[in-house]
Formats: sequence, C-alpha cells, structure tokens
Amino acid sequence: MGNSAEKWIRDLVKPIEEDLMSGAAELALRAIIIFQTIMKEKKAEKPEVLRSYLTEAAKQLVGTQPAMAPVFHLSNSVLIAIKDCQSSDELIEKCQDTLDEFEKTLCASAARIADLAYDLIEPGSLVFAYSFSSTVVSALLNARSRGRYFRVACTESRPSLEGRKLASRLNSGGIEVIHTFDTAMGLILPACSVAFMGCDCMALPGVVNKVGSWMLAVGCRELKVPLYALSGTEKFVSEERLFEFEKHERPGSEVWEDAPREINVVNSQFDLVPFDLFSGLVTERGILQAADIKELISNYAVHDSLKLETASS
Amino acid sequence: MGNSAEKWIRDLVKPIEEDLMSGAAELALRAIIIFQTIMKEKKAEKPEVLRSYLTEAAKQLVGTQPAMAPVFHLSNSVLIAIKDCQSSDELIEKCQDTLDEFEKTLCASAARIADLAYDLIEPGSLVFAYSFSSTVVSALLNARSRGRYFRVACTESRPSLEGRKLASRLNSGGIEVIHTFDTAMGLILPACSVAFMGCDCMALPGVVNKVGSWMLAVGCRELKVPLYALSGTEKFVSEERLFEFEKHERPGSEVWEDAPREINVVNSQFDLVPFDLFSGLVTERGILQAADIKELISNYAVHDSLKLETASS
Repeated sequence: MGNSAEKWIRDLVKPIEEDLMSGAAELALRAIIIFQTIMKEKKAEKPEVLRSYLTEAAKQLVGTQPAMAPVFHLSNSVLIAIKDCQSSDELIEKCQDTLDEFEKTLCASAARIADLAYDLIEPGSLVFAYSFSSTVVSALLNARSRGRYFRVACTESRPSLEGRKLASRLNSGGIEVIHTFDTAMGLILPACSVAFMGCDCMALPGVVNKVGSWMLAVGCRELKVPLYALSGTEKFVSEERLFEFEKHERPGSEVWEDAPREINVVNSQFDLVPFDLFSGLVTERGILQAADIKELISNYAVHDSLKLETASS
Repeated sequence: MGNSAEKWIRDLVKPIEEDLMSGAAELALRAIIIFQTIMKEKKAEKPEVLRSYLTEAAKQLVGTQPAMAPVFHLSNSVLIAIKDCQSSDELIEKCQDTLDEFEKTLCASAARIADLAYDLIEPGSLVFAYSFSSTVVSALLNARSRGRYFRVACTESRPSLEGRKLASRLNSGGIEVIHTFDTAMGLILPACSVAFMGCDCMALPGVVNKVGSWMLAVGCRELKVPLYALSGTEKFVSEERLFEFEKHERPGSEVWEDAPREINVVNSQFDLVPFDLFSGLVTERGILQAADIKELISNYAVHDSLKLETASS
C-alpha cells in the first residue's frame, strides 16, 4: 500500500483518534462509517486492493483506540469476513453484512441492558453516572421515557470533560442533573442509591474504563452504594488484549498546557476495576456476577493483521 | 460602625475570600497582615473605634473562610487580647504581640513537623502530596535540602488547580515532580511509598481538607499506602465549629462556566476524612494516632463576636 493511500486512511481515522468524548460503543459506530466510506470510494478497485485498504483501516483503528473492545471486534469481524472473497462485489457484500450485523447487535444489546437497568433505578432516587457511555445514557433516557422519575449526579471527567457531554445529553432528555468536579463524587455519592458506569473492555481481571472508575468503585464500596457496569458482552477481550489500554497515553499538555518544562505531566486515560468491586455487570445476557464472567470470556479467532506481538516475538 | 468603614474592611478581606490556592496556615499569615494594616491606618482612633474595626475584620475573616481553623484562632486570639484595653497604644501593643506570637508558633510548628516528616520519606521513593499545604511544602523542601532524594507525585486539585501551585513550588525547590489529573491518583498511588496532605481544621470526627482528601484516604487504605496529615495543633477546633466548612460553597460557574442553565453545578470545597483512615497525624507534638486526638482537643475561650449561633438561638 502506497504512502498516499495510507495517509488517506490516516485522515479518515484521525477524528476517531482525537475523540476522547465518546464511549466504546459510540466509537464502534463511528468506525462503521469509516469502513463504509472506504468501500464506497474504492468499490472500483480489485479485491486485493480493497482488502488492503480495509486491513489498513482496521489496524489503524485498533492501534489508535487500543482500549475500545467494540472497535477491535468490529475490525476483526470485518477482516475475517472478507478474508477469502474473490471479487470486489462479494467482498463489499460480506463487509456490509458484517457492519450491519455488528450495529444491529450493539443496538439490541443497548436496548436489553436499558430494560435491565430500569429495575435498578429506584423511583425518586439520585443515580450517579460516571464519564460518558452511550449505553448508560440510553438506559437512563429509556427509564425516564418509561415515566420513572429520578435525578442524576455526574462529574466532569477530567481531562476531556466528557462528563459535561453526559450532563448536557441527560438534561436535554428531561432528566434533572447535578454536576460537580470529579473528587467531589465523595461528597455526592452518599446521597446516591446506585452508581452506573460504562465499560471500554473487559476480561477476567476486570473492567477497563475511563480513569476515575477505580476511585468511584472503591468509594462506592466504602459508602455501600451499589455500582453496576452497563456493558454488552462485545466488550469482552482476551486477557492479553486487556492491557493494551496502557498504551493509550495522551499528551500531558491536555492536562496542563503551560506546565514548567521540568514537570512530568502524565495523561493516562484508563484504569482497571476488579470485578469484585461491582454489585453486578448489566449485559444483554442478564445481570452477571463476578463468578459468571469466566464462562462468558469468548474464544474468538483473531485475524493475523490484528494479532498482538507476544513478549517472545 | 458605618457603611464606609465596613466596606473598607470588606475590600481588605476580599483577597482572602478569593484565595482558593493557599492552605490554612498561609491564609492565617495573610490575615495577620490585614490586622496590621488596620492598626497602622487607624492608630489615631479611640480604642473603641479601633476595637470595632478589628472585630469587624475578625468576623469577616472567619465568615469568609469558615473551614480555616488558623484564621479562626488568630482572629479569636486578637479579639480576646484586646478586649479590655483602655488606650489605643495598649490595644495596638496587645494585638501586635498576639500576631507575633501566632506567627512564631505557626513557623515553629511547621519546622518541627518538617523534621518529623523527614523520617517518613524513604530515600529514592515516590511521595504523593495532595492539594496545597504550606506545611507539606515546607516538609518536602526541608527533606530535599537535607539531602534526601525522592520524587513527588501530585494532582491538579480541581476546580482551583492549587495542585499546580504545589507542583511549581516543589519543582522550583529542586524536587522532581510527576503531575496528573485528580482521578489518576488511582493510577499513581500504587507506586508511592507514602502520601501527605495538609489540614484546614480538625476535631474528633476527623480532618477537614480540600475535597478529594476523602477519596485519597480511601484509595490509600485500599492500596496500603500510608497516609499522613501534616498539621499543627492550631488546626483543632470544637466539634460544632468543625462543620462550618459546609458553609463554604463557591459559585458553580467556577466548575463549569457556560453550563446549561437547568444543570445544578455544585462547587463544595471541603470534605471530612475520619481519623482512622490515617496512619498518623504529624503535629508539632509528635506523630499522633486516632486514640491520642481526644486529649488534644483544646478547650479554648471564644470571643462573643465569633460565637456560633446554636440551633436553639
């Protein structure tokens, strides 16, 4: 693949790399559009060329958002689906089917999770929600539209402040919102009946999500506030892939723009919450406990282009 | 006291009201300058007039920074010292003696605390420090100047970002600093050998300090990182005064300037950390444990002008 083709894909993927405001499911929906754009723009190309474009996009997407399991699974499914296609028409059809199926599954999961979460929201209560998760937003808006009255407390989620996006979205949806800065969750949690968070990826060690999720979880346990992660099972990854999130370092200048040069400003985006800190994991297959997780970790085939380099390789 | 006199004092006190970057001891030092300014500007006045100016300043200072125990004790000591003075000369002398004595005690405490804290800093280790406390800064700089090598990790302390002031001060003092946002303390604490915080006021229920101190304390316990509050005993207050910190609400716009109007943006400044979450309280009288606290809560006289209204009054 030539430099200009690679650059064209880099430009397509760039907005996803820069998107620190969206949850994992939302990023996968954005990735679907990128695959569709490539198919549309390159449909006249031979199948090998088309495949190399889609493979490059898959690699870049996974590399740029290494913590986001749905982006990985979507990309992996696409590459496996188009692996043996002989014609461009066949390749495009298989790719489109995979994208459609993935989107349908994501939406069906979110709807089922919203129904399960409804029963966790006590009428008249205050619900805590952290960071931004489209799964959490759809659960809260669904509960509101079914007539349940409750308020939501949320915090800003430094440094990207995607908590403001959450607050605005819920407010527009008719939910009364109390907003504060992150460390003040310690002051507001005692008034909350339940806390919800999303999930970027998970495996046996626990749930990876926006930094602060671990503090929230430890705080919830201390205050006896039940904490649930709302997440479709498309967030499960293998244990070796789980720790890919540690690669996602952002520039320190996003935390402190004009810091003295000698100060080392660290901007890590994710942390890992052990399963035993949750009251449950709300998935499309039901509300699961730590003990249920093991049998759900799916063994999935990984396309060669997306295989991780192991320590010995 | 006339409106113009009251306004003159309000203008003097205003910078202290707006100061969200300084710790409690530093604010008391700034309050000393206000009392001195009043004595200098009004020395030609009759003692009653001078006393009414100083009383008004004391009330405003305590009202404007209700969580800051040293500001209260300084103001209270001044008012008690000048209570029965018959001449302005006598009043000025007593007031100045009180201010000098308070400053001397603050500095001696800080020096003694720094010496005790030195032994808590392991050579070559990473030390966590939260918010901004002049007592913590002087302890760290003292250890560095005595030749101990260590690094400090600190976080920004939203919304006022006084953690940046801490980072800059330590960096200027030759200490290597790692800085990140507040919720990322969960990622950096596991690498720390000890954590230090200051204290704004304390009584039997625990230590009041900048919001986030409670999350830090719970995180430290979970990760088995010893946490110490560095604080002179001038931070002790009566239990009824302790909860005055809850009066210190700041405008929501300091958290989110252009928030949608319907969103309730809360900006509380302090939280309360129970003593049992600390490994110790480093005071000028030694490193104290929770069990030692009770006998140290001093019974002090409170000047009528600074007495709290009780529920029945």
